[in-house]
Amino acid sequence: MSGLSVFTPFITSVVREFDAYVPGRSVAEIKEAYGLDRVIKLASNENPLGTSPLVQKVIREQAAQAFRYPQAGNPRLVKAIGELHKISPRRVVTTNGSDEIIDLLFRVCAEPGVHNAVAFSPCFGLYTTQSRFAGVELRQAPLRPNFSFDFETLLRLVDEKTTLVIITSPDNPSGYAVKKEVLADFAGQLPPHCLLVVDEAYVDFAREEDGGEKAFSVFSELDAHPNIAVLRTFSKSRGLAGLRLGYAVLPEELAEYVWRVRLPFSVNLLAEEAGLAALADTDFRGRTLKVVAEGRRQLEEGMRAQGWDVVPSQANFIMVSHPRVSDAAKVNEGLLHRGFIVRPLGSYGLPGRLRISVGTEEENTLLLEAIGDVMANLLN
Amino acid sequence: MSGLSVFTPFITSVVREFDAYVPGRSVAEIKEAYGLDRVIKLASNENPLGTSPLVQKVIREQAAQAFRYPQAGNPRLVKAIGELHKISPRRVVTTNGSDEIIDLLFRVCAEPGVHNAVAFSPCFGLYTTQSRFAGVELRQAPLRPNFSFDFETLLRLVDEKTTLVIITSPDNPSGYAVKKEVLADFAGQLPPHCLLVVDEAYVDFAREEDGGEKAFSVFSELDAHPNIAVLRTFSKSRGLAGLRLGYAVLPEELAEYVWRVRLPFSVNLLAEEAGLAALADTDFRGRTLKVVAEGRRQLEEGMRAQGWDVVPSQANFIMVSHPRVSDAAKVNEGLLHRGFIVRPLGSYGLPGRLRISVGTEEENTLLLEAIGDVMANLLN
Repeated sequence: MSGLSVFTPFITSVVREFDAYVPGRSVAEIKEAYGLDRVIKLASNENPLGTSPLVQKVIREQAAQAFRYPQAGNPRLVKAIGELHKISPRRVVTTNGSDEIIDLLFRVCAEPGVHNAVAFSPCFGLYTTQSRFAGVELRQAPLRPNFSFDFETLLRLVDEKTTLVIITSPDNPSGYAVKKEVLADFAGQLPPHCLLVVDEAYVDFAREEDGGEKAFSVFSELDAHPNIAVLRTFSKSRGLAGLRLGYAVLPEELAEYVWRVRLPFSVNLLAEEAGLAALADTDFRGRTLKVVAEGRRQLEEGMRAQGWDVVPSQANFIMVSHPRVSDAAKVNEGLLHRGFIVRPLGSYGLPGRLRISVGTEEENTLLLEAIGDVMANLLN
Repeated sequence: MSGLSVFTPFITSVVREFDAYVPGRSVAEIKEAYGLDRVIKLASNENPLGTSPLVQKVIREQAAQAFRYPQAGNPRLVKAIGELHKISPRRVVTTNGSDEIIDLLFRVCAEPGVHNAVAFSPCFGLYTTQSRFAGVELRQAPLRPNFSFDFETLLRLVDEKTTLVIITSPDNPSGYAVKKEVLADFAGQLPPHCLLVVDEAYVDFAREEDGGEKAFSVFSELDAHPNIAVLRTFSKSRGLAGLRLGYAVLPEELAEYVWRVRLPFSVNLLAEEAGLAALADTDFRGRTLKVVAEGRRQLEEGMRAQGWDVVPSQANFIMVSHPRVSDAAKVNEGLLHRGFIVRPLGSYGLPGRLRISVGTEEENTLLLEAIGDVMANLLN
């Protein structure tokens, strides 16, 4: 009988409009598919130094506790995050990666079919998918051709039904960022009840020569502009992508309501312990920022020397294009054959571009060689 | 300025109706509050044997991988679950605990304000909260006074707009369960497009003398009754509550659509690795089932000997009441003073009852002594 019976349950029209799901390919799959011994993954903006030694130690020590439910509300972690940013812990909500808080903000801050949200285009894919899933219109203003932010066009999309404006700075996939004063000024122009959500996933990679995190992060603006919310993640500079830990700093009342509807145990027990260890391991984070700054310079200079255009990046990745390449998927395919996974940006509507995460010096060197090899084959 | 600025963003009326969030208290907090050296927690139906040794080994080995994103779609784990149940992996959806799939089912299978879901009352709290959050009416039929299932009353709540009927068997918090034939028969009575969701979180604890898991689990009924969905968790017999891993076996088309909207990395990397190890560690699971069966008998007999009424349980907990106790919170308070955390059931609308998770033989013995002591104080 197996497989013969077919039953079609009710599925909402919103969900039926979603594209088919395409699972990602693992390093192991790429190795097998291309017959490779070594694969270098520079596709997901992960930490080039891997996992903090202190985090690894804490995970090993806490492994025996995996049978216990996490502590609902993550009070120790929330307190530590409050101390890190010198803000009230009552403003902090921890989530299963930033993905969960993005989903929750659309569900909590907008009536489906009534309110709308505003963002740039292209933007991080989760903003598009989760607004659709929540039944909330997402209005998008195009980025300028150089990927800078056109705030005037963005503001024209805002009306009396706009409750969320979302800006990722540094932006994904370009690496472009604006200084905190620009965001504060924009927050002041928004109508009442409209929350400016600044996704700062990459802000601690901002260039020191441009003022670093202090010049870009809006934390110092929160008192003067209480309609700003900040999203942060442990996936990048803190090296915990696999454990899924993000957080939001929200207006206090909003934070209280998000806690009411957040799944009680969405942050797992090892993520909470590892998150506390990651906050404590300032040495690892310092080394990460240094390796990313040096590797970004290495990649930018190396790519430009090979004739690629590089958007100046404040993040741990660079976005590149080449005057003689209209379909970057071909370059990507050549790189896969040589054991390198980067991110072609067709899904962002940018078919001629690649996003490359900053790796270690050795990884960057090998990638630059491989790209030279791929291009020599493609262009001759 | 800090704390002076107040900004109230838009928050939906549905969310504003949610109760204030009360974080749970940790073992550490209870120790401090009551000045205790040892606290025994029998409140959350966790595994009495703790974490599988094989799982602990795998977590320690994989700690260094915490910086990598999980593989989207969890293909290795999905395949292993398919093999476990001898079903197509295309029917399997893995989630961040069963909580996430519960939330997703309401969002995917019901138009807000149009369709409704049906369940018994009382039921697992997540069914109530997530249906409300999704804007889906939850109709509830009362359990019989002995906590058995009144399917006739349940069926009368089902109409042409009902898309989900949810039954937890064994039930929480009573431990009552019905045989698979009863559920299959009920599935056959439901109208087209109505999915019967059977939450089998506790089914592998079903008593061997009553036929065990085989007699209660609906997996063998899926071919004949394709409108049945099954929810399972790694939190109980597999000992992974802290890592948050649940899964659903759904009609294939529904599974495909749930994957389209499930957050791409909601199951963390260590949960996937630990889940594979937990499936492999059949010895640990066998020992768990034996300890729970013996401990359940010990607790049931011990409580009855002290004059308590015990609902016969097919789960890893028992629900108890006492003819001379109308407010079980007082018994709970006495137990906390003595270092025992159990679950008073006021939040389930059962103020006279306690739910006690089955512990090890030593934990059960100490708990029975403590309850005797508390009752001697309360009743004299």
